[in-house]
Amino acid sequence: MKKITIGIAGYGNLGRGAELAAAQNPDMELRYIFTRRDPPAVRPVSPDVKVLSMGDAPRVAGELDAVLLCGGSATDLPEQTPELAQYFNVVDSFDTHSKTNVHFEKVDAAAKAGGKVAVISAGWDPGLFSLERLIGEAVLPRGSTYTFWGRGVSQGHSDAIRRVAGVADARQYSIPVQSSLDAVRRGETPVLSARERILRECVVVAEEGADLARIEREIKQMPDYFADYDTTVHFISAEELEKNHSAMPHGGNIIRSGRTGQGGENGQTVEYALRLGSNPEFTAGVLVACARAAVRMNGEGASGCKTVFDIPPAYYLPCGAEELRRRLL
Amino acid sequence: MKKITIGIAGYGNLGRGAELAAAQNPDMELRYIFTRRDPPAVRPVSPDVKVLSMGDAPRVAGELDAVLLCGGSATDLPEQTPELAQYFNVVDSFDTHSKTNVHFEKVDAAAKAGGKVAVISAGWDPGLFSLERLIGEAVLPRGSTYTFWGRGVSQGHSDAIRRVAGVADARQYSIPVQSSLDAVRRGETPVLSARERILRECVVVAEEGADLARIEREIKQMPDYFADYDTTVHFISAEELEKNHSAMPHGGNIIRSGRTGQGGENGQTVEYALRLGSNPEFTAGVLVACARAAVRMNGEGASGCKTVFDIPPAYYLPCGAEELRRRLL
Repeated sequence: MKKITIGIAGYGNLGRGAELAAAQNPDMELRYIFTRRDPPAVRPVSPDVKVLSMGDAPRVAGELDAVLLCGGSATDLPEQTPELAQYFNVVDSFDTHSKTNVHFEKVDAAAKAGGKVAVISAGWDPGLFSLERLIGEAVLPRGSTYTFWGRGVSQGHSDAIRRVAGVADARQYSIPVQSSLDAVRRGETPVLSARERILRECVVVAEEGADLARIEREIKQMPDYFADYDTTVHFISAEELEKNHSAMPHGGNIIRSGRTGQGGENGQTVEYALRLGSNPEFTAGVLVACARAAVRMNGEGASGCKTVFDIPPAYYLPCGAEELRRRLL
Repeated sequence: MKKITIGIAGYGNLGRGAELAAAQNPDMELRYIFTRRDPPAVRPVSPDVKVLSMGDAPRVAGELDAVLLCGGSATDLPEQTPELAQYFNVVDSFDTHSKTNVHFEKVDAAAKAGGKVAVISAGWDPGLFSLERLIGEAVLPRGSTYTFWGRGVSQGHSDAIRRVAGVADARQYSIPVQSSLDAVRRGETPVLSARERILRECVVVAEEGADLARIEREIKQMPDYFADYDTTVHFISAEELEKNHSAMPHGGNIIRSGRTGQGGENGQTVEYALRLGSNPEFTAGVLVACARAAVRMNGEGASGCKTVFDIPPAYYLPCGAEELRRRLL
């Protein structure tokens, strides 16, 4: 089997997850990591992987079938995805929803100019959740779709807590409201406020001698982040935070609740639920599957920007069509 | 908007569900029902739909964009799908898994000869569950996939009970074993026997004066159907069966349980759950979405046999790519 040779651009949590995900796929061979840091400062898990400056990526274009872009959506991907799509089949997990179509257009132009396939917004949301939203609406056109995020760490909310005076460190967990989840599962179609959708649980390490009551009050009253939610605050030691809260779990649920029948007499619910021990490692698994699809689509003559909506699912796996039907249909 | 004109072949529970599903999709226009019965004996929900003999279907080939095949997998579809695929884009819900590739080859040859697209095995299992098995394996290559069916009526098991002497009528519910479901959800990867996977609950109407203890014993000891399972038997009246057990609910769960990380230290679970008030109406919703996809693929020049593995998900919905990205990605 000829292996799919890949590179990774950006080596943070997601990039490291991508290295580990590639290692779980025997048809993948990771050759390069591209970084904006000083290359010797980046230590891949595998010593066989070469580390190059981001700007040197085009020099090895001939060696790689695809590049997984593992930077952030705020500033990295809007620049890096179109840049690298000129030279490589690429996959990113761009998740700034309001800018998706703008990103799509830029990446599409670059990928078409380079004759490459670029898959954007490949992760779990956007990505797998998007797919479920689409399929739910297609098979149950009369219905409502609900997205619940959590239980998982929200980076933005954790950062907000850390900015409160007297806070040494913090982790914020977003938790779906069980009674709302249950109502939607029963086939009800409630209109849910922010408070009815998500609970916010804060785990806080306070500085020595800090006023805990004031910290708790400031967190709970923080506009946008916490004021509109039921928020709980737990103070713990730095050791406990390190020991019990350094993982990056996440998850969520997509529920399509529809009605069928002549008078809508039959309730039908479709639920998709993720419980992820490591958010970046799971997201990386989606990137790898999409990279395989991108390489195959490009090999068949396709170019331009794609999303999970455009990929025939068979392309996510390396086996042949007959085997897929026999084993998985 | 030019409507997609469709026909339905076979008007049992699934065919009727297909008529109702088509009515929920404003881009669909149902024109014909094809039947092996005497056409006047078939009464569609809508009086505008014409009923023709199955053999007359080719006469109206020019009027229809697609035909939904709603017969059974045992004898109807192996014959009807290749026959009609010569003249129409077709969709069926063929579910005899051991014969899928044989069916595929026959349908593929017929559809290619006719220049049409034929989607087979489109329903929830096979169909949506197949898609989830594929995606689960693609994103979590190191893991196990579990399929649980139920809570729902099993037609084959209900029929088996009705063959017991003294039984007037019966309904058999397959119910997933909660403790096994919970174990898999926790990320465990148990090897599950039939008994550990499904409970069988039997609702039985006995004939006047029948020996209930004997009926219960004969059901519970029936090889293949019940002997290998924990089975409960409840005797009820014919009125109660009619009132509380005439719906056709079903459902099930696909769970992919995987591990990621350098040493497999992070558990990841993906769960897909269906809770269906009406099995045939939900299955029909999948047929309609696949018919839309078949027509579009055929319009782009494709022909031959396809499954959900081959269909770009965007093709399931009538809206454009930009709208899909904006609204659902």
